[in-house]
Amino acid sequence: MSNRPLAAIILAAGQGTRMKSEKHKVLHPIAGKPMLHHLLDSFAAANIDRSVVVVGVKREQVEAAVADYPVDIAVQSEQLGTGHAVLQAQPALEGFDGDIMACFGDVPMVQPETISAMVARLHEDDKPACVVLGFRPDDTKAYGRIISENGLISKMVEHKDASEAERGVNLCNSGLLLARSEDMFGLLARVDNDNAQGEYYLPDMVTVALAENRACAVIECAEWEVAGVNSRAELAAVEGEWQQRRRAQAMADGVSLIAPETVWFSSDTQVSSDVIIEPNVIFGPGVSIASGATIYGHSHIEGATIGANAKVGPFARLRPGAVMEEGSKVGNFVEMKKATLGKGAKANHLTYLGDAEVGEGANIGAGTITCNYDGYFKYKTVIGKGAFIGSNSALVAPVNIGDGAIVGAGATLTKDVAAGDLALVRAEQTAKEGWADRFNKASAKKKAGK
Amino acid sequence: MSNRPLAAIILAAGQGTRMKSEKHKVLHPIAGKPMLHHLLDSFAAANIDRSVVVVGVKREQVEAAVADYPVDIAVQSEQLGTGHAVLQAQPALEGFDGDIMACFGDVPMVQPETISAMVARLHEDDKPACVVLGFRPDDTKAYGRIISENGLISKMVEHKDASEAERGVNLCNSGLLLARSEDMFGLLARVDNDNAQGEYYLPDMVTVALAENRACAVIECAEWEVAGVNSRAELAAVEGEWQQRRRAQAMADGVSLIAPETVWFSSDTQVSSDVIIEPNVIFGPGVSIASGATIYGHSHIEGATIGANAKVGPFARLRPGAVMEEGSKVGNFVEMKKATLGKGAKANHLTYLGDAEVGEGANIGAGTITCNYDGYFKYKTVIGKGAFIGSNSALVAPVNIGDGAIVGAGATLTKDVAAGDLALVRAEQTAKEGWADRFNKASAKKKAGK
Amino acid sequence: MSNRPLAAIILAAGQGTRMKSEKHKVLHPIAGKPMLHHLLDSFAAANIDRSVVVVGVKREQVEAAVADYPVDIAVQSEQLGTGHAVLQAQPALEGFDGDIMACFGDVPMVQPETISAMVARLHEDDKPACVVLGFRPDDTKAYGRIISENGLISKMVEHKDASEAERGVNLCNSGLLLARSEDMFGLLARVDNDNAQGEYYLPDMVTVALAENRACAVIECAEWEVAGVNSRAELAAVEGEWQQRRRAQAMADGVSLIAPETVWFSSDTQVSSDVIIEPNVIFGPGVSIASGATIYGHSHIEGATIGANAKVGPFARLRPGAVMEEGSKVGNFVEMKKATLGKGAKANHLTYLGDAEVGEGANIGAGTITCNYDGYFKYKTVIGKGAFIGSNSALVAPVNIGDGAIVGAGATLTKDVAAGDLALVRAEQTAKEGWADRFNKASAKKKAGK
Repeated sequence: MSNRPLAAIILAAGQGTRMKSEKHKVLHPIAGKPMLHHLLDSFAAANIDRSVVVVGVKREQVEAAVADYPVDIAVQSEQLGTGHAVLQAQPALEGFDGDIMACFGDVPMVQPETISAMVARLHEDDKPACVVLGFRPDDTKAYGRIISENGLISKMVEHKDASEAERGVNLCNSGLLLARSEDMFGLLARVDNDNAQGEYYLPDMVTVALAENRACAVIECAEWEVAGVNSRAELAAVEGEWQQRRRAQAMADGVSLIAPETVWFSSDTQVSSDVIIEPNVIFGPGVSIASGATIYGHSHIEGATIGANAKVGPFARLRPGAVMEEGSKVGNFVEMKKATLGKGAKANHLTYLGDAEVGEGANIGAGTITCNYDGYFKYKTVIGKGAFIGSNSALVAPVNIGDGAIVGAGATLTKDVAAGDLALVRAEQTAKEGWADRFNKASAKKKAGK
Repeated sequence: MSNRPLAAIILAAGQGTRMKSEKHKVLHPIAGKPMLHHLLDSFAAANIDRSVVVVGVKREQVEAAVADYPVDIAVQSEQLGTGHAVLQAQPALEGFDGDIMACFGDVPMVQPETISAMVARLHEDDKPACVVLGFRPDDTKAYGRIISENGLISKMVEHKDASEAERGVNLCNSGLLLARSEDMFGLLARVDNDNAQGEYYLPDMVTVALAENRACAVIECAEWEVAGVNSRAELAAVEGEWQQRRRAQAMADGVSLIAPETVWFSSDTQVSSDVIIEPNVIFGPGVSIASGATIYGHSHIEGATIGANAKVGPFARLRPGAVMEEGSKVGNFVEMKKATLGKGAKANHLTYLGDAEVGEGANIGAGTITCNYDGYFKYKTVIGKGAFIGSNSALVAPVNIGDGAIVGAGATLTKDVAAGDLALVRAEQTAKEGWADRFNKASAKKKAGK
Repeated sequence: MSNRPLAAIILAAGQGTRMKSEKHKVLHPIAGKPMLHHLLDSFAAANIDRSVVVVGVKREQVEAAVADYPVDIAVQSEQLGTGHAVLQAQPALEGFDGDIMACFGDVPMVQPETISAMVARLHEDDKPACVVLGFRPDDTKAYGRIISENGLISKMVEHKDASEAERGVNLCNSGLLLARSEDMFGLLARVDNDNAQGEYYLPDMVTVALAENRACAVIECAEWEVAGVNSRAELAAVEGEWQQRRRAQAMADGVSLIAPETVWFSSDTQVSSDVIIEPNVIFGPGVSIASGATIYGHSHIEGATIGANAKVGPFARLRPGAVMEEGSKVGNFVEMKKATLGKGAKANHLTYLGDAEVGEGANIGAGTITCNYDGYFKYKTVIGKGAFIGSNSALVAPVNIGDGAIVGAGATLTKDVAAGDLALVRAEQTAKEGWADRFNKASAKKKAGK
């Protein structure tokens, strides 16, 4: 590996018209993470030193999205081609002496290993002027072709300008390209716009280099790494490819997916071995699942920490801050948010646990609601170890229920319950004799008369 | 285009045995709409003037299903072949002077553009006797072949009678056919039943016409347009094809589908750009969604109007008459039916809103139930702007809650609440000291003794 | 068919390392049933007389899993190859005189018909020494090839030892093999371990037989029948294949699957004709569904008996012991467990029915909870015919509600209700005038001050 500094220039100035979106194209997510962040995270994994994002329309969206990343912004005010766009980053890299990768915000899946392989190739003994990233698609469509031998390029040719023989070559140009800083900007400065569109094209720097008798190398990667996203359909296709690879990885790690094609991971989902995931589970960001847990079908899980041998769902909704300790259980139609369920505790049915702490072994009855919100502020509910909350209870926070306490079914609890006590909130049951018979008779008559 | 009147004869007299269904085959739905209605709607889009449905068994089901369509019914009492079936429509079209399309109730996907192209071809200068709709399937199976040159047919041949060379032709007969009224009935009258089954076949009218030195033309369409449905598996296949095309259209329109293959549209679903739809969403009829709305996963939506930037689900059930105004939110395990949620209003958890009006900015607590039904009649709940309904409340309709009012958690509300008031329905909380400890001890002992 | 006794030797001694699981490989489920049980059930259907499972690591798991099956256990303490493993079963089959099938616990899908065909072949007039089960995979990968003519084997050759011509043969060895008991153990005793691994290979018995001028036959089966499971990905692939075949069968039986690929059957699911199943339905074991029922999407159904014309879901959870009689209805966010819903009875929204009997035509209001559990014991709720349970009620079992009785909304019911009576459990509604206005004003101020 090279020890020279490495920079990336990420082009993100395009209109993205085919997305038909108010949102900037590079901010549309794959696996819940914006495309641009996928790229930046891959560069970080490849030990990049500097990043410049070249923006145009909707630049404020991009700037906001990279606020937490150490990147510089350059602006391309006119759309004069990819070569021109890269040159707009030159001032931001003033004084930078190293290698520069030019890539595209809407080609988000390039892998760290591929970036590193390009860097390594740039510094091999033959010192190429640049390294182009090529791929061999199933369908070469209208991609530019790379004419090469032994990894050295003799010609770059657009599909429309290619001869029959050249079109027979299936090594295509991804557009991604690595060069030393002096070459990147030096060669680009000598690219002209003598073409139908009057634009400056990035790949033309290879042609310039070849004309100057410089060697230009090509490295190959898998097609999916350089799949571009120009439409929602292409976005869905890249998402699908990402998910398929992630599912395969999970299964290789010892996770059982009954129907892999129906489990959607987030970019950061962590799943241990011997976890079983039934069909139709959606993971949002921030989830980790310990060994032996079962995630039943039709569940929606985000920001949750799921302990060993826990059981989740079916029809569970875990929201950020949900913590399920070992062997705990969340059943159907149960929602947790900023809530901890202690070891072996259970909330099996129709329950909302928000801003709550539930002690070890406690049992939360069906239809229990923590009333954590008064319209303005949130309050906390604390339930002790081994406590038993009767069904259909409303726990008006802030409220504490002691260890081993019991709350009778149907309570609206507004005061604390001491450990070992029974709390009841209940009116008397009264019977109106024969009332239902009379009501039914009268109503049926009324209905028939309608 | 021709200005002559256009009629369709739709054959729907078959037994449909392989469907194994009490329901008439042509009434099985694609995207929630009966096959027969798909056909009739396509004909309407192609400006058809008259339609005759030829029925046999289960005719009463078909008649009921077309009650709202301007179609005539003809009966084929004996199953003597497709040619015979078409002739049964002749009395119903007595005096009709125009073009007639013969088609099949179980071939539901033919597109208006294709119908129009057939009409246009029929009236080109060479005035063909009929226009046959052909297609080129991936697998020619046992389809009849159309032997043609420059769009003019020289021979129609059944697979079993075809020579090796003829079997090599992949242009197949869909069975759909257009002719002037006098030709449709005239040529068919001269078709004989001199074949193994002793039936009168519709395509034989082409053979008759060719024998009379009339030109017969062929128009081609995509295979999916003429896919037939003879079994539930074929029904599912056509449904799948329809859904795939609808999803592609949604994405082209600027809708984000995270997992397109898991979103099921209805035939009339309307979705604006910049709507995001998570995996596993099912749309029933009558849904429209405005821009910027998000439909979270595991949702089931029917007859609902969803405003701009609204948030739905996960695990939302919207039923007919659900109206969500701009920026409103329906969360998990929430059902709406004939109910309006005002601008920015929220019903986030475990709630049933039926026959209700919820004002702008109101907050419906978890576990709220509108008690809209007394077993005979339905009653309405009206909740004012900015009102706050405490969790686990039962609102016994008819009931009105004023603007800015608060209902305390756990209330069973039977009387109106004035604007700005707090309503409470709540018994006293009592504690039985140590009762839980004693109960737990005794119960554990009893259980161990078991 | 032969009348000789038939035995199976099932090899299950492998490590299963690639599964990365604490659970023994052959116990991982397909369609909810352990692989080993699939095999044993197929053997039972083929009228097998004896089964011996050869175990090694995690043998206690296998022994526990076959406790209800009439099988013997043999132990292979050293991993000396498949031939050696089969020989470990010899003592358990001491005195057994019949045919023996050697097969693999991780090749679970071999069908009864295939087993019977192998037996029939073994006893044809040419009396082969053994019958090998072959298959023709799409991708021959590195499978051993079977060189044969007219169903008689001339050579078995490993992929790595095969000539170019032999690799061109696509008839591959599944490893499954049938022989008379004396041949199975006799031939295997003459197999040596003169190979790179120093192991005794089962297929080498064919080579021994051929060297002794015995005929060896090959029978072919479909690839999916002999798909092996060595990883979670292969487990998912076999599951997928099983589900695809089951769905096709359901549709052929007259069941409508809107999106077949999203319905997961269990190994024993029974579905009648004219049942409609919407997308995203998961079946656990023990489900039967009568004709005319509709299962709406996003449902999870296990151990349930669903009557004719019943309606289930969307978002229904039926657990073991759920019985829905004719025309009954379970709606969204409703869970049933050990509960019967009488003819035409309805539980449409947000309800938990556990250990309950609901009479014909009864109506269970939204948010009703049967409080069936006190932390130690379960109790029963009985609801009479035509009873009406008001919304948001908690029915504290044991409790009986008579025919035609009405329970007012919001009740916590602890005492029985007589037929025709109305039961109310309800506090007075009180209003605090202007309180909400004052609270809102103060809270908004406090929040703004934050």
